[in-house]
Amino acid sequence: MAGYKRYRKESEVSYSLGITLTFELLKYKAEYVTRIFIHSEMKEGDTLKKLTEYSKAAGIEIVYTDKIFHVLSQKENCYVIGEFRKYQGVLTSEASHIVLVHPSNAGNMGTIMRSALGFGVTQMAVVRPAVDAFDPKTVRASMGAVFSVDFVYYDSFEEYRELFGERELYPFMLNAERKLYDIRPRGVFSLIFGNEATGLPEEFSCIGTSVVIPHSGRIDSLNLPIAASIAMYEAAKYK
Amino acid sequence: MAGYKRYRKESEVSYSLGITLTFELLKYKAEYVTRIFIHSEMKEGDTLKKLTEYSKAAGIEIVYTDKIFHVLSQKENCYVIGEFRKYQGVLTSEASHIVLVHPSNAGNMGTIMRSALGFGVTQMAVVRPAVDAFDPKTVRASMGAVFSVDFVYYDSFEEYRELFGERELYPFMLNAERKLYDIRPRGVFSLIFGNEATGLPEEFSCIGTSVVIPHSGRIDSLNLPIAASIAMYEAAKYK
Repeated sequence: MAGYKRYRKESEVSYSLGITLTFELLKYKAEYVTRIFIHSEMKEGDTLKKLTEYSKAAGIEIVYTDKIFHVLSQKENCYVIGEFRKYQGVLTSEASHIVLVHPSNAGNMGTIMRSALGFGVTQMAVVRPAVDAFDPKTVRASMGAVFSVDFVYYDSFEEYRELFGERELYPFMLNAERKLYDIRPRGVFSLIFGNEATGLPEEFSCIGTSVVIPHSGRIDSLNLPIAASIAMYEAAKYK
Repeated sequence: MAGYKRYRKESEVSYSLGITLTFELLKYKAEYVTRIFIHSEMKEGDTLKKLTEYSKAAGIEIVYTDKIFHVLSQKENCYVIGEFRKYQGVLTSEASHIVLVHPSNAGNMGTIMRSALGFGVTQMAVVRPAVDAFDPKTVRASMGAVFSVDFVYYDSFEEYRELFGERELYPFMLNAERKLYDIRPRGVFSLIFGNEATGLPEEFSCIGTSVVIPHSGRIDSLNLPIAASIAMYEAAKYK
């Protein structure tokens, strides 16, 4: 059997690090789980019993080994790892979307997924180049929301727009025409956010209705997951 | 001259890591700056010129050394460090506050400061045990907002309440009496948030008006900086 390798974007599988995350994986994406790894320091008890019973019932192999933990986890207290095949999500015309154009930080993407699930925006479009939604860091930051939010990658915003351009499109930009609390999204919509450092390119000001979250001039911008979460919070009010 | 040491909570000085952060430090807290360190790889040019002129005008010593960078900075491209004496802020009865009870993560605290400055909540109370607002990690995450947001530490919430209990107090809890968008803060108020993992203790439900940010049952809770930022965004609307 080959040694365990670090996660790479090209890998066919990814990992949930930790027991809570692995239960989320089993709950929502059991059909993609290939193996469950259990560390020798994992305590006997109800949690382990539940995990092993659940895995056996689903026909998932359990591997008792410490090796993969040295490779994948820098955190202490990580005694369970779930391995799963990457899968392909589907976006639909009936659902509102959050659209991330060139996001670069895995933690931010995971945090946005967690908020998105909280505010009922369960479909995400991602425009490349972009961080990997299956990166274990994204999975961890999402607190498992990654297993419930459908996401699809596009090579350009135009590709996304050809499929979903009929809806209300709201690009978030600092020099926008409308303030967030003056818009009332009805029906389905897409909330569009740019890269952490550079925001959306200027040409997005001609797409749909550009929106700004008003803030004082004392800061340059809001942090991306915060801006995206405030937008989803507002939009969720009118559903 | 003694060698440079890692930052510790007990240190009398702290540091701004990077050029942008150091300019923020010089802009808002020049009177506390003790030294500016410049790395040998810092490029000549307008930025360096502006920095040295500014420092000289303010009577701040400039030290050309690479050593402190090895000790304090893990990031590449950090060629300027500002050293400053820690200072004491003041909270006032006339200003609204954000109150963090037992926050444990430096990055989160910095991110909350950045949002707070953006939404005009420029005073923060922190109840111990709590993370260090002067930790270089907090300073960095705040993007310099730490130099503009006044903050004061308290040993207990009771100590804070004795000073500022007359105002509207809004503890944020999952099992709260009111939804965020049903409250209309008038006058001065305090938005109170608990620890990242445990939230506010149950006894806060008897203090002021407890508030929840409505979200679906698909997530356990929102991430702390996101919840605090949404609350400040809403409150800022009615000012």
